[in-house]
Amino acid sequence: MKIILCEVNISEGENLEVIEEVKKTITNVKGVKVIDVNSDKNHNRTVFTYIGEPNIMLECTKKLASKAVELIDMTKHTGSHPRIGAVDVVPFVPIKGVTTEEAIQMARSFGKYMGEQGVAVYYYEDAALKPERESLVNIRKGQYEGLEEKLKNPEWMPDEGPAEFNAKSGAMVTGVRFSLVAFNVNLNTEDVEIANKIAKAMRHISGGFRYVRAIGLSITDKKMVQVSMNLTNYTKTPIHRVMEAVKSEAERYGVTIAGAELVGPVPMEALEEVVKYYLKVHDFSLGQIIENNLLDEVQ
Amino acid sequence: MKIILCEVNISEGENLEVIEEVKKTITNVKGVKVIDVNSDKNHNRTVFTYIGEPNIMLECTKKLASKAVELIDMTKHTGSHPRIGAVDVVPFVPIKGVTTEEAIQMARSFGKYMGEQGVAVYYYEDAALKPERESLVNIRKGQYEGLEEKLKNPEWMPDEGPAEFNAKSGAMVTGVRFSLVAFNVNLNTEDVEIANKIAKAMRHISGGFRYVRAIGLSITDKKMVQVSMNLTNYTKTPIHRVMEAVKSEAERYGVTIAGAELVGPVPMEALEEVVKYYLKVHDFSLGQIIENNLLDEVQ
Repeated sequence: MKIILCEVNISEGENLEVIEEVKKTITNVKGVKVIDVNSDKNHNRTVFTYIGEPNIMLECTKKLASKAVELIDMTKHTGSHPRIGAVDVVPFVPIKGVTTEEAIQMARSFGKYMGEQGVAVYYYEDAALKPERESLVNIRKGQYEGLEEKLKNPEWMPDEGPAEFNAKSGAMVTGVRFSLVAFNVNLNTEDVEIANKIAKAMRHISGGFRYVRAIGLSITDKKMVQVSMNLTNYTKTPIHRVMEAVKSEAERYGVTIAGAELVGPVPMEALEEVVKYYLKVHDFSLGQIIENNLLDEVQ
Repeated sequence: MKIILCEVNISEGENLEVIEEVKKTITNVKGVKVIDVNSDKNHNRTVFTYIGEPNIMLECTKKLASKAVELIDMTKHTGSHPRIGAVDVVPFVPIKGVTTEEAIQMARSFGKYMGEQGVAVYYYEDAALKPERESLVNIRKGQYEGLEEKLKNPEWMPDEGPAEFNAKSGAMVTGVRFSLVAFNVNLNTEDVEIANKIAKAMRHISGGFRYVRAIGLSITDKKMVQVSMNLTNYTKTPIHRVMEAVKSEAERYGVTIAGAELVGPVPMEALEEVVKYYLKVHDFSLGQIIENNLLDEVQ
């Protein structure tokens, strides 16, 4: 059983009729569950988050994006959030049983389809075809207003679709990234320097784990400090390994862990690894979880 | 979101038409998922295992049991498995978000309904009304053949339904028990005495945890020994506590843990506790698991 999550960011956060029309393409679809629809007027942007089986998700996402391209006119768009097109960014996020490779195939199939509809498409993150296109910030630099110029630069030839500027729809970015796991560890000390040192030891940029971003913080109301982390690929840098490393570094200062927090959504596979590590159950599989029998029903 | 599991044991394991008729009452019901239907000709017995939301499950189970009572004639039943009636045993097993109290209410509502249909009903395990009726073995002693005599004894007055012997249907046992977690820990030694000592330290009967049954075993092909355990109530004796106790006892003999096994089905709540303990995530909830959004779909 395979599950993928899709997070479609469209450049419309005010016009409820448009948002509703776009939303209709993914509601009441068997096998697809809409988790969240978040509209921000100030950003003039809506994010649709939904999950389901890869094939159905791909079909739904094509329909959603086509509808947004049909109804949104970028020549009239203003908003405080950076954006490059009507369908701005579409990450495919593997949740269960989906390899990075399979997710990339989905993003490419989706990108090809949107290219054929006349939208310039760039692949980013794990689906990027060039290193300089891995970063969304890089691709979106200059935004919609700078796109016409950008497309004249051979270096920014789109991965799919026409290199001519499509004023109505702009460009689209799609690709694959992993679900971000927000993991904070609270330490029984008020010395924020200790949290900073441990954060430094954990984060990729200063020599730590490849898929960890980390900072140290004071939590003054609790008289504690916190190592606040984002794990950007829990399959390659799993939660338990980070937990054990934080614990080990805290010990050198004689500091104990007061508790930790998993903030927001977490894929079951990220927790499967925690169970397997700590209980040493090498052969455990998610299929053994009784409730997971119910998941088949959906598909 | 609440999930209960039901495991209905009926006294028919050969006649496929009857089994199919009974099975029909629980298939294609929205919100109910049949996990397993296991017929044994020798036992002349079929076990239906299915899960779903408590209200729907109660309705389904009434229908299933009524159908079995209609189609099965105990005067003609033979089989090698102990049994006391056409619908022999019906445990309700809390899986998610269901308290023992709520499950007992279900069992009682089901028992009352079956009593009204002329079946003598006994409540067992967590739903028992008298200590001597907690044990299924006790209630079933003498089996169907001894039931007519047993019902004449005021001590065995049924909890629901007539005290007169119903020759066609016999009696029924229903109640509440927790999902059994089979947890084995393998030790890096060939000395089975060490496994025996640790098993003794863990099991309830010899002073260990209230809800643990344990034995020591040799696994000759792996040159290891095993502490083989059944956890009969993971909410009161959680897996991690048993794991840590085994680890601690193994250490005194200088023996390390080679690995462990969770055998067969496990409720998600049993693993939630493992994650919360080892990651120290005191506020984590199952609602944060992305896939669990899909479970709503079923209901």
